[in-house]
Amino acid sequence: MKLYSYFRSSAAYRVRIALNLKGLAHDIVPVDLRAPNGGEHHGAAYRAINPAGLVPALEDQGQVLDQSLAIIEYLEETHPDPALLPADALGRARVRALALTVACDIHPLNNLRVLRYLKHSLGADNAARDAWYAHWVMAGLKVLEARLASESQTGRFCHGDQPGLADACLIPQMLNARRVDCDLGDLPVLLRIEAACMALDAFRCAAPENQPDHTV
Amino acid sequence: MKLYSYFRSSAAYRVRIALNLKGLAHDIVPVDLRAPNGGEHHGAAYRAINPAGLVPALEDQGQVLDQSLAIIEYLEETHPDPALLPADALGRARVRALALTVACDIHPLNNLRVLRYLKHSLGADNAARDAWYAHWVMAGLKVLEARLASESQTGRFCHGDQPGLADACLIPQMLNARRVDCDLGDLPVLLRIEAACMALDAFRCAAPENQPDHTV
Repeated sequence: MKLYSYFRSSAAYRVRIALNLKGLAHDIVPVDLRAPNGGEHHGAAYRAINPAGLVPALEDQGQVLDQSLAIIEYLEETHPDPALLPADALGRARVRALALTVACDIHPLNNLRVLRYLKHSLGADNAARDAWYAHWVMAGLKVLEARLASESQTGRFCHGDQPGLADACLIPQMLNARRVDCDLGDLPVLLRIEAACMALDAFRCAAPENQPDHTV
Repeated sequence: MKLYSYFRSSAAYRVRIALNLKGLAHDIVPVDLRAPNGGEHHGAAYRAINPAGLVPALEDQGQVLDQSLAIIEYLEETHPDPALLPADALGRARVRALALTVACDIHPLNNLRVLRYLKHSLGADNAARDAWYAHWVMAGLKVLEARLASESQTGRFCHGDQPGLADACLIPQMLNARRVDCDLGDLPVLLRIEAACMALDAFRCAAPENQPDHTV
């Protein structure tokens, strides 16, 4: 398998975690979203691989898959062990809802193309963009904290005592929140789960600073 | 089953379509997102049902599920017939990616809370907000059009000749695009699929204008 990835893309980070948790061998192919001319993902070479021009994309058996959650569901169906979703339908719905809270309610508002639009089309300055970023990431993380703190299914990880899809989405978003200096002190359950995840090689090796294309 | 819904919420519209396609009896409980004081979804009564304060939520067997795609996957697992996802893993990944293109790359940027932030915190006027809305909806729909036009799995519907998850996400977004007067003329495949969907009662009955809480 081949993963088209950018070290700082949190959607790519999710898939890197999932591949590692499942122990699936893969090559990382870096795609530089910050390259001159708007980024390598907009170039013809990458568009030929993934016409949507978004990262990540996974190549498996000659097919290219996109959208991080669709990729992880595919890995779950084709390599079910270890499972990243629980076995029961209600549990699966809970884990997917936690993951989608990150993937739909936080991340899309804070990715690079949106921040660029805020700057170039709406004239938002650095402070306004940071406030925007912090607003959405904290709103979403507080929803997750309240839910994880109150629901009995929460364990050592987001759902029980095995890491899974929700953790793979949460951890990259926690890192993003720190990048804009959000105060995470009021999120004790998230911090506890993050610490449990970062004690695992699967998460640590997937982190941006351990990627071949990492730069400061 | 009970669906907490708002007639104009396109995430709720997706779930209404899925329930109808599967022929599942359900009661619609309207939640007025435009009620005074910021909307009924922020009130204590609704927060007691869905702490995230977002619509839709589905009540089934005494449990409340949220996040439209997690709800639809739950319905698919608990009521598999008729299927809204194909049987093969690659096909399922394709349908999920199409759905997520709407759910992650278009819809989160254009929902009410984001438009309110643009207005109140960034001072964006009506024209700037409409331009924002149109920008993201058209960017996403063009990605879908290119993909559906070029891929052999596209049939009468997004994937083959049976309506499914991708169609349930696409149709509400087409309606949203029209609300801000987007020119959809360059999206012939999407228009053709939309026409095929709207010929079905499952889609028509789920439409905003056929909801009990519909207002103009």
